[in-house]
Amino acid sequence: MQVIENPAAFQAIARSAPRPLVLVPTMGALHEGHRALIRRARELAGPSGTVAVSIFVNPIQFDRASDLAAYPQPLEADLAACREDGVDLAFTPQAAAMYFPDRSITVTESSLSRHLCGATRPGHFDGVCTVVLKLFNLSGADAAVFGEKDFQQLAVIRRMVRDLDVPVEIIPHPTLREPDGLAMSSRNTRLLPEHRTDAPRIRLALLAARDLFQSGERSAETIANAPRAQLEQSPFLKIDYLTVVDEETLQPVFTLQRPATLAVAAFYGDVRLIDHIRLEP
Amino acid sequence: MQVIENPAAFQAIARSAPRPLVLVPTMGALHEGHRALIRRARELAGPSGTVAVSIFVNPIQFDRASDLAAYPQPLEADLAACREDGVDLAFTPQAAAMYFPDRSITVTESSLSRHLCGATRPGHFDGVCTVVLKLFNLSGADAAVFGEKDFQQLAVIRRMVRDLDVPVEIIPHPTLREPDGLAMSSRNTRLLPEHRTDAPRIRLALLAARDLFQSGERSAETIANAPRAQLEQSPFLKIDYLTVVDEETLQPVFTLQRPATLAVAAFYGDVRLIDHIRLEP
Repeated sequence: MQVIENPAAFQAIARSAPRPLVLVPTMGALHEGHRALIRRARELAGPSGTVAVSIFVNPIQFDRASDLAAYPQPLEADLAACREDGVDLAFTPQAAAMYFPDRSITVTESSLSRHLCGATRPGHFDGVCTVVLKLFNLSGADAAVFGEKDFQQLAVIRRMVRDLDVPVEIIPHPTLREPDGLAMSSRNTRLLPEHRTDAPRIRLALLAARDLFQSGERSAETIANAPRAQLEQSPFLKIDYLTVVDEETLQPVFTLQRPATLAVAAFYGDVRLIDHIRLEP
Repeated sequence: MQVIENPAAFQAIARSAPRPLVLVPTMGALHEGHRALIRRARELAGPSGTVAVSIFVNPIQFDRASDLAAYPQPLEADLAACREDGVDLAFTPQAAAMYFPDRSITVTESSLSRHLCGATRPGHFDGVCTVVLKLFNLSGADAAVFGEKDFQQLAVIRRMVRDLDVPVEIIPHPTLREPDGLAMSSRNTRLLPEHRTDAPRIRLALLAARDLFQSGERSAETIANAPRAQLEQSPFLKIDYLTVVDEETLQPVFTLQRPATLAVAAFYGDVRLIDHIRLEP
């Protein structure tokens, strides 16, 4: 495995690496969820193709400086995981090498990013689009694997690929969960013990809402109210949003007629967790 | 020469065409200035490479509907010119095929585009960046040729390539001029006869300013005032801007110490013309 810090060097090496090249963009702090993405990439690239993993805590997608500062960066452990999972190229740039001080180009999204996480995290998805496009351009990837856990991010990236004719195939991969149902996230390690014990209620609340849906309920408000009550029973958790949205437009839905998603974001202290569940007849 | 209207078909054909592929993005109404870009592209691609020319009047870069509606679109003559100049692929999409009705991704520029043409044409350079990036992604170009006449556009595109790590080499090509000095432009055909006769004063005014600079004058205000007076003598011309800007940042300059550019935009009726001249010791 080659570890490359310099963007120009990565671009030169990746673009002449054996095809297909499959990219897994990450912010590091790799857990089993990431590693499932990496192993999927390895399968897709085949034994003769190239798997590239980027490890970059992208400053321009953080709306809160405290969240950026607290983001875990266990680089050596991440590189060991990459080696174990058969990665060929690990790209580990510094922020100063990715962004010029007079940077003035941003990829912006004006519709899907208005709701859910985007509503309370101004600029977040523009930062995501900008860095992902840079990583695509640097790597010359044929395909890239993204976790379904960040389902709004996945929708925004698919929209970017569509609207800008980006020649990269987007491969979604299912959310991995802890045995108690909590969606895997690098932020889970920052939860206090009592918060970690409480956090599985997020998944349980979503499952309860799906049960309601599957028993025939079609009012989004009714479907959202049940898990809301369950979450509000927590002495620690603070709901950021809990909304039923259309799967394609991410617009809030009032009556469920087409496939929709119930999405939730919640804080434990300053740790923000997200999860979602599909509501499909 | 293949003429391709469908973006997906163009992407498939261009990406498997012999390398290097050199792209010349145009809005059609090809004049000798464009043809010089195309011939330059032919030289760069060599006999075994591919020259692609896009002909697309990009609606999202027009800030005035009247300008868009009046933009000349002599497609058959354009295709004949492309054939004569050895083009391999002519890409002639319809606007509806380039932009989905629910398009929500835009490439934005927040610094270089604030001045000069950008100041009075909101959204213009975002529209340029967005379409140029789409054309790069569709064509998989190794290099692209742009006219220096649109020098702010060239600066913005270079910034986009730098900031997004776009793997396309940008080749600038000098402005071509009519025998009387008027910079070639597709909009020149829309000038009334008396305006066309008057228009060479733009170039003459820029040359006079350069003389002043070369004789030692370093005050941007003094250097701009001379051509301003000359332009104001025209009974037809209306100045949009006449400004000395830094060559790199495009910020207005007060005292000339580094290479700068005197840039002008002016209206004859509703026809807007631009030109510029470098001021370099």
